[in-house]
Amino acid sequence: MKIIIINSGSSSIKYQLINMPTQEVICSGMIDRIGLDTSNLTYVTSNTKLDESLLIANHKIGLEKIAQLLMDDRIGVIKSTQEIDAIGHRVVHGGATFSNTVVINEEVKEKIRQLFDLAPLHNPANLEGIDVAQEIFATAKQVAVFDTAFHQTIPVIAYKYAIPSKLLTEKKIRVYGFHGTSHKYVSEKAIEYLEKSSKIISIHLGNGCSMTAIQDGKSMDHTMGFSPSNGLIMGTRSGDIDHSLIFYLINTLGYTPTEVNNLLLKESGMLGLTGYSDLRDIESNAEKGNVDCQLALAMNAYRIRKYIGSYTAAMNGLDAIIFTAGIGENSSYIRKLVCTDMDYFGIEIDMEKNEIRSKEIREINTLTSRTKIMVIPTNEELEISNQVYNLLLN
Amino acid sequence: MKIIIINSGSSSIKYQLINMPTQEVICSGMIDRIGLDTSNLTYVTSNTKLDESLLIANHKIGLEKIAQLLMDDRIGVIKSTQEIDAIGHRVVHGGATFSNTVVINEEVKEKIRQLFDLAPLHNPANLEGIDVAQEIFATAKQVAVFDTAFHQTIPVIAYKYAIPSKLLTEKKIRVYGFHGTSHKYVSEKAIEYLEKSSKIISIHLGNGCSMTAIQDGKSMDHTMGFSPSNGLIMGTRSGDIDHSLIFYLINTLGYTPTEVNNLLLKESGMLGLTGYSDLRDIESNAEKGNVDCQLALAMNAYRIRKYIGSYTAAMNGLDAIIFTAGIGENSSYIRKLVCTDMDYFGIEIDMEKNEIRSKEIREINTLTSRTKIMVIPTNEELEISNQVYNLLLN
Repeated sequence: MKIIIINSGSSSIKYQLINMPTQEVICSGMIDRIGLDTSNLTYVTSNTKLDESLLIANHKIGLEKIAQLLMDDRIGVIKSTQEIDAIGHRVVHGGATFSNTVVINEEVKEKIRQLFDLAPLHNPANLEGIDVAQEIFATAKQVAVFDTAFHQTIPVIAYKYAIPSKLLTEKKIRVYGFHGTSHKYVSEKAIEYLEKSSKIISIHLGNGCSMTAIQDGKSMDHTMGFSPSNGLIMGTRSGDIDHSLIFYLINTLGYTPTEVNNLLLKESGMLGLTGYSDLRDIESNAEKGNVDCQLALAMNAYRIRKYIGSYTAAMNGLDAIIFTAGIGENSSYIRKLVCTDMDYFGIEIDMEKNEIRSKEIREINTLTSRTKIMVIPTNEELEISNQVYNLLLN
Repeated sequence: MKIIIINSGSSSIKYQLINMPTQEVICSGMIDRIGLDTSNLTYVTSNTKLDESLLIANHKIGLEKIAQLLMDDRIGVIKSTQEIDAIGHRVVHGGATFSNTVVINEEVKEKIRQLFDLAPLHNPANLEGIDVAQEIFATAKQVAVFDTAFHQTIPVIAYKYAIPSKLLTEKKIRVYGFHGTSHKYVSEKAIEYLEKSSKIISIHLGNGCSMTAIQDGKSMDHTMGFSPSNGLIMGTRSGDIDHSLIFYLINTLGYTPTEVNNLLLKESGMLGLTGYSDLRDIESNAEKGNVDCQLALAMNAYRIRKYIGSYTAAMNGLDAIIFTAGIGENSSYIRKLVCTDMDYFGIEIDMEKNEIRSKEIREINTLTSRTKIMVIPTNEELEISNQVYNLLLN
């Protein structure tokens, strides 16, 4: 079964063509800066690597371009769009409506549209990708995989806010949780590795950052709530704040609500603390003695440590923590900061193992560490294709 | 030394006349509903209990009335205002300016005024109390004791938000922490009782609710931040939320910022979840089977448990937790919920000891509990008078 995974963002499309059940990645790539002066397009197969600058006005043109490359006489990998059995679409917000992967029909599209308000940056772009894919790959099954679905098991005690109850019942304001595909994938890998279903905390540190408490394979609590803004410190997002400072910025300092929202989403986090949003820059500056960068990294790790404690309390126990995603998999610096002075939680990092770079699942704890410290490379595309494959097979 | 402790709120004055160093409370009472149609005034001495309804137009008239009662021929306890050596004023917000108790002069008053923006509900009323007390008790030393002072030891890693750094340096937006007088008082009592300086978490559950991580007697982290709005679920305050829901309420649901602020401060918390703000009502309804009340109490306790975990991580250890203030001292129901399924943290409650009502410091843990669970009655007035006494003695 040939499945294309599409992750359609506001100005980008990421794609992978995967053969199932062999999990062979036939081709992958992305287009960014859609609608801007020049876009970048990449297209990678086992024997081709294309990197092109060109003008791509909208998502339809972008996906048509990808389809042309897939069928190209010289560098293509299929003969016709009809060879594609299914398209797996990443959809960020499934609200309280979708707790599972679904085949897309008009009703599903309408429900995704109804969730625009909850994810104004993401869901419209995701639906755009679905519309365009339906036109171009008309014979393929279209399937939606929701970032929020994994978190539908979070109990009411954790997903409800202490605000008037009618805002939950009538306006659906609650904790949804995000990065679900990643948290699901790495926690399942961990359970397989540990050979037992356990109390696990997964720490996804990438562009966005979030943590999930996972008990018996189920999401029990999560650092992001109603939207992907709160919880951990991110590249440009503040994560947790005292919300009263929003009203202070508006009422006393004269900001508009939109300015405050932009400040917290785009000018905060590591960028606001250091002037840099890329962690590699921040780490190298910290190592050179930049105190702002040192403090920002320490703050970041402190907040992760506090959530480890918090979720250990929520589950009354802890068997393993997992680092994943770009920063989690590659920054030994952050992992070390997080795992220092955490022996109360049985967390003891092996400094040498922590420095090993690898694409494999690995343990980086000492032999005596009560809690396993694991690094597990995430693979959201593979998780999506697994879900699509399993749905269509049954 | 005769010291009057004054806690001046927006429409109330609470007062106590304490003899130091004997700590004898000579007289105590309060006036509420100042400026409304009828106020209530109470005045209690060892042999008098007065409870009066009358019109009290402003704080000056209120404090004059109190002074008259203190000097009353029949039920008074002093002959002249000159017998009062000092007035200890509770001031809620000391900003980053005040880390200690200070004798009030014009400069101090000006600084308290500069902090009005940070505590618009509290500091103006506190300063009003100071102004009026200076007129009426002209010969007494006026001393300010700040709720935030105890938290000045919180390290930068915990007090800084992940927002642009200039909002800290230029606008002083940071974690301040509140209920400091209470957290200081009960943690010192605990250290005295435990006969060692330890890793302690104090849980103040009253009208406002907050928790403090206390290591070697110093505040290291605190659930309330820039203002007393976030952290735990309170009577009418939401505590922690995902701040993005504020922008959703404004941009999508059409609320004004002020309406959202009022919603989160006055219509949320236990009131928003259950329709009741008084915990006694909520507990008795929960016991009768009201599921909203049961859920709200469980949510409340769940958040406290998560902060216990969080602060245990922050300190990498835990020796004792302290319950204090109205709810903390009196609600065995909440204490039981908090201490259930917390054995990972060495927390084991003794159900029988938990039910004992007492005004004394007590342990309610089992004999085998690694972590002490203590109930310690708070006494902010006594703490303030101790601080005033010590300041003036030196």
